[in-house]
Amino acid sequence: MDRQQIEGRHAVAEAQRAGHPLDKLFVLDGCKDGPVSSIVRKAKKGDTVIRFVSRERLDQLSETGNHQGVIAYMGAYTYATVEEILQRARDRGEPPFLFILDGIEDPHNLGAVIRTANQAGAHGVIIPKHRAVGLTAGVARASAGAINYTPVARVTNLARTIETLQKEGIWIICADMKGPVMYQVDMKGPVALVIGGEGAGVARLIREKCDFTASIPMKGDVDSLNASVAAGILAYEAVRQRMAPR
Amino acid sequence: MDRQQIEGRHAVAEAQRAGHPLDKLFVLDGCKDGPVSSIVRKAKKGDTVIRFVSRERLDQLSETGNHQGVIAYMGAYTYATVEEILQRARDRGEPPFLFILDGIEDPHNLGAVIRTANQAGAHGVIIPKHRAVGLTAGVARASAGAINYTPVARVTNLARTIETLQKEGIWIICADMKGPVMYQVDMKGPVALVIGGEGAGVARLIREKCDFTASIPMKGDVDSLNASVAAGILAYEAVRQRMAPR
Repeated sequence: MDRQQIEGRHAVAEAQRAGHPLDKLFVLDGCKDGPVSSIVRKAKKGDTVIRFVSRERLDQLSETGNHQGVIAYMGAYTYATVEEILQRARDRGEPPFLFILDGIEDPHNLGAVIRTANQAGAHGVIIPKHRAVGLTAGVARASAGAINYTPVARVTNLARTIETLQKEGIWIICADMKGPVMYQVDMKGPVALVIGGEGAGVARLIREKCDFTASIPMKGDVDSLNASVAAGILAYEAVRQRMAPR
Repeated sequence: MDRQQIEGRHAVAEAQRAGHPLDKLFVLDGCKDGPVSSIVRKAKKGDTVIRFVSRERLDQLSETGNHQGVIAYMGAYTYATVEEILQRARDRGEPPFLFILDGIEDPHNLGAVIRTANQAGAHGVIIPKHRAVGLTAGVARASAGAINYTPVARVTNLARTIETLQKEGIWIICADMKGPVMYQVDMKGPVALVIGGEGAGVARLIREKCDFTASIPMKGDVDSLNASVAAGILAYEAVRQRMAPR
């Protein structure tokens, strides 16, 4: 992974504002002024590794000689576009097979889902820009490198993206506890599987846009499955169907 | 969950030696003597929450008045026996459906697998005593409560346990990247699914004891799936087969 070094309060704050995940942040120890505190506060919400270090250490790291007390490292994980993902399916001559993740917040889970998407032969993963984790270093680690092979697109409006996919002839299948059991839902053609986040599952607005729902049989005493496990189970039901002769 | 409080160096060290997971450990701040350092070192290897506190705080927590600088809390997660798990299957009038986990070290993964076993209607989970995580507070959290419903047995010798299960007429199915694809492996009868740990998969010695191997189709660029995701995919192939009319 290439890393990009950003120095100075404005540059670092700007990167945060633009939604670029910071892998690592070095901050001058004891520095409490407004802009720096605000950078640290934002970084704490993500899974940035924060280190409070001496001025000497910062000077040593600095490439510009003007770090103003903050140096950040940004992962060079680049997002794909939805169109690039669809093109990948066309290039392979396969009906599109996508994942849409609605609000996965845990980096472990997002990484595990990208890893699963890779192994299941999916063409890409679509995640929303808001209320969800992006491609951080933690996600890359949990993906076991799959992040370098399976494109991830990040979109502002998931509902609108779903409409676009539907116009392309893709069936949108929502993982939901209610609804027909997944073994009875046809996932052989062009499909996108919609998986909800850890807490609330798929949001109502998104669920209502979907063409079908598919449920995983639940025989247990607890509420639900781990989000990445549920994604894996549903994905491999699609794999099974897609491997079988039509 | 009930918690058990243990006080004093001997009692705490003894609990660690017996392999009881400590959820939380309070240690006198600044105390550096041998027995206490050794307790802290061992606790750091597990996922015990360690707090260094003042003598006043320890005195306050102490029930015996003789804490010697250490107070620990042990989760009251009790292990079942393999026989209890088999009895559960008999009570339900179902062919046994078990998970055997060979060396899962990550509490997140173990918790997620117990949660999956619960939802898949399995009768229990068997884990080894060595080189694997036990029922810690982190595992309980990740299991989303499933730990209270699905029995977990911990055994000293996994190979010997497999022999015992085979004598009971249970087929042992090993998840392995080589071997026939899982859709072709009959999992309708009495079965135990063997899932390997995060790194090495199922150990050779264990793999050789198994009756069948079953592989998850891998179409990707990375090596493997997350251990709990792989367990989920294999478990739900068994669920699919077991739901279908014979």
